[in-house]
Amino acid sequence: MRDGAQQEGLNLSVQDKLHVARHLDDLGVGFIEGGWPGSNPKDTEFFALAAKELELRTATLAAFGATRRAGLRAADDPLVAALRESGAPVVTLVAKSHDRHVELALRTTLEENLAMVRDTVEHLRAEGQRVFVDCEHFFDGYVANRAYALEVVRTAAEAGADVVVLCDTNGGMLPHQVEEVVADTLSVGARLGIHAHNDTGCAVANSMAAVRAGATHLQGCLNGYGERTGNADLVTSVANLELKLGMQVLPEGALAEATRIAHAVSEITNYPPSARQPYTGVSSFAHKAGLHASAIRVDPDLYQHIDPALVGNDMRLLVSEMAGRATIELKGRELGYDVGDDAERLGRITERVKAMEQQGYTFEAADASFELLLAEEMEGARPSYFDVESWRVLAESSRGTEATVKLRAAGQRLAVIGEGNGPVNALDHALRQAIEQLYPDVARFHLIDFRVRILDQGHGTDAVTRVLIETSDGKDAWVTVGVGPNMIEASWEALVDALTYGLRRHGVPVGTA
Amino acid sequence: MRDGAQQEGLNLSVQDKLHVARHLDDLGVGFIEGGWPGSNPKDTEFFALAAKELELRTATLAAFGATRRAGLRAADDPLVAALRESGAPVVTLVAKSHDRHVELALRTTLEENLAMVRDTVEHLRAEGQRVFVDCEHFFDGYVANRAYALEVVRTAAEAGADVVVLCDTNGGMLPHQVEEVVADTLSVGARLGIHAHNDTGCAVANSMAAVRAGATHLQGCLNGYGERTGNADLVTSVANLELKLGMQVLPEGALAEATRIAHAVSEITNYPPSARQPYTGVSSFAHKAGLHASAIRVDPDLYQHIDPALVGNDMRLLVSEMAGRATIELKGRELGYDVGDDAERLGRITERVKAMEQQGYTFEAADASFELLLAEEMEGARPSYFDVESWRVLAESSRGTEATVKLRAAGQRLAVIGEGNGPVNALDHALRQAIEQLYPDVARFHLIDFRVRILDQGHGTDAVTRVLIETSDGKDAWVTVGVGPNMIEASWEALVDALTYGLRRHGVPVGTA
Repeated sequence: MRDGAQQEGLNLSVQDKLHVARHLDDLGVGFIEGGWPGSNPKDTEFFALAAKELELRTATLAAFGATRRAGLRAADDPLVAALRESGAPVVTLVAKSHDRHVELALRTTLEENLAMVRDTVEHLRAEGQRVFVDCEHFFDGYVANRAYALEVVRTAAEAGADVVVLCDTNGGMLPHQVEEVVADTLSVGARLGIHAHNDTGCAVANSMAAVRAGATHLQGCLNGYGERTGNADLVTSVANLELKLGMQVLPEGALAEATRIAHAVSEITNYPPSARQPYTGVSSFAHKAGLHASAIRVDPDLYQHIDPALVGNDMRLLVSEMAGRATIELKGRELGYDVGDDAERLGRITERVKAMEQQGYTFEAADASFELLLAEEMEGARPSYFDVESWRVLAESSRGTEATVKLRAAGQRLAVIGEGNGPVNALDHALRQAIEQLYPDVARFHLIDFRVRILDQGHGTDAVTRVLIETSDGKDAWVTVGVGPNMIEASWEALVDALTYGLRRHGVPVGTA
Repeated sequence: MRDGAQQEGLNLSVQDKLHVARHLDDLGVGFIEGGWPGSNPKDTEFFALAAKELELRTATLAAFGATRRAGLRAADDPLVAALRESGAPVVTLVAKSHDRHVELALRTTLEENLAMVRDTVEHLRAEGQRVFVDCEHFFDGYVANRAYALEVVRTAAEAGADVVVLCDTNGGMLPHQVEEVVADTLSVGARLGIHAHNDTGCAVANSMAAVRAGATHLQGCLNGYGERTGNADLVTSVANLELKLGMQVLPEGALAEATRIAHAVSEITNYPPSARQPYTGVSSFAHKAGLHASAIRVDPDLYQHIDPALVGNDMRLLVSEMAGRATIELKGRELGYDVGDDAERLGRITERVKAMEQQGYTFEAADASFELLLAEEMEGARPSYFDVESWRVLAESSRGTEATVKLRAAGQRLAVIGEGNGPVNALDHALRQAIEQLYPDVARFHLIDFRVRILDQGHGTDAVTRVLIETSDGKDAWVTVGVGPNMIEASWEALVDALTYGLRRHGVPVGTA
């Protein structure tokens, strides 16, 4: 989460980071690098919150930081103290391993840099933390001064580092070079890791080359996020290791969650997922079948490099969207609906989901809206606590925004005004005020996030807008979705779903009021 | 252009293809595969038009097609005739080389498939065309039945094919496998080529592995277009060959056109270029400088794998949360401002940027707003083409959204109404209509994307909203930012910046109107 967040324009709040960490844990990764405590208040807060709130099943949290400053004792360096006090069981220490960088960026001697590595690792080990050492600019440093680069690796290992990670920080390497350098560096006797960037389009291949040469630790980012061209894509790397090189690196069955998780995280980062992303992209198993349709039907494996279900993706033959019957059935079961016992109904729901996803809805990120859709299909009518007559929003410069909502509920006609810091907020206030007397639970609901995305990039006026709204009742949170040419209309749809879902979740019977 | 156009959603007209061909020729590629004449009217028309209109300086046009049908003489096959009559000096013939595909998709015998390859190559050679043979599913075929796969290569070479291209059609290979198979296949004695897809994220690395093993011909697509996960990206492959492996494959100086050409073609395909694309992406040489800014100033090559000018790209410094004086100074220089010669002013700008980023602004993603801030500090006043008096937005259910904007410009008072599909869109329309007569350039501007984020300085009501707006004039695009408790107010700020920056960029002097 630290290096991925270096991507231009990517900004994660503390809550976003907690969500991403849970997704990474679901994927079953070994370690999650949460940030650099002490370097900025947000990362410090993340580790404090994580220690209280984050329950990880598979992953271990790692804090990132640098070796001690030149001329200071590790125990006295406040940045080292922040790592010690982060509560993270693992610390990833970045160390310079390229002689020119030691002189130019650290402005210290080669000897002092080695001492900085040794002292910091020993200090943190003595304090009970596991340490990984990231050798920054290692490959360029190896070319410039092999002996010194290897000396940094040796120093880190001898001081007690669990793994020494070789970083292609500038990303300029090709796989055959990585393979040679890793094989040579193994002579030091340390356990090695690889950290690759995609500047030559080879981040994943470089990671594979390192593992084949003997590295046992691989660093990557979900969706290939990262500075410049990005880091090695985590899912592609892991899927290659498991499916191509036959190494099991994730818990049994976890890889099948990869597509869902990659897409869910892209909703959090607000970076649309690439359709061409290996393994997880919506186009990655799509075939313009034409000529081969019948052969594909006889033996699909002749036309795909793996069974897409292994990574939770689907083969697509036509222009249809990806939701298949099996997915819907599974998802329904997860939500407590036995959708599968009626084939006709299952077919109808699948068709409806496909049609809506084609319009721009995304149920992957909006479980609550999906559950309302399921409830509608299973129970014959959409759960409804009120009938909307109309709404209106007025916003003026140097004033707030005002919304008027008119609706009917429990035989009453209600017309209420709400104020807010924007159209969605004002509508939310008006709507909740209108029904609060009838449904007191809504007083506990609050809108904690909303995201707006234009789907048809490049067409300005005619574009479709998708709004995702996250609502909390102080205990749980749920996400709803609205889609339409008008942003406020789409927001309203998501808002109505948000309150409806919340009331249903609280067990409020429809029509009680 | 044929395999790239297999990308889901990508559609090129005949005129588009002529434009793309000229761009590829500017890049200096050896061969351009124009399409499959005879398979559809558009491709047939393209070759007819190309023969008349397309003057290529470096490239040679190739027509793609299949070996003759089973049981027919090559001379009598109408699809082979279309290749012969296309006027293309080169024909790329696709041939089956995987035994199961011969049986299942072609429904013929292994012997007849060899005869189809031999006859078709010999026939086209006799008619004076050069022939490349693309061995489809070669790598999977090699694994399934090595002897047969090699026999297809041998048959093609002996029949007179210039190059036999080994295709990883399903894209499942890793570089070490490609290297082994290519090295072994060279024993046949043919000149070999490589055609790689990106399903394991290794299309470029697989191409490099093949070249290192002895292949002398590489097929790729601009911007990595192609079916599923795409083909090997042409620019990344070629830049790696030239800059990493020291092989000159393009005419002198052509590589420096790569970024321009990659972006120009993405305008034609209407697929926004990826910011993370190796070599040509706008983020590919962007640095969140912070800590390292001073070292970057001394020796930029320590922080980049190549000089970006070699591929026609630029180093960019991102003004991020960690912005220090050195970053601001460097960034200013990049934008043409000598900020560094006045230490007091530099300090003032740095403090202001830090304070604004703390409020929620992000200049990293909004270069245009940053440039306006710099201009304000350097020139004593913010560039201003109009004075806003007030604005208002009204949105109602089942209707559109309407905005009113009142402003003064060039001594006139203007009050204008605009409609749109949401508040931002309506304000944008109203604002542009208001000033269009005074500043005709704004008619060419259009809003191409906007992103809204709630920043988590609080919950719901007190939250701060950040709006990023991307605007284009059809040639360039720029991003502006607005921040505030009111979403519409923040959008308005970003909109005003967007038009102001655009007018300034177009050289319109302030106060001309």
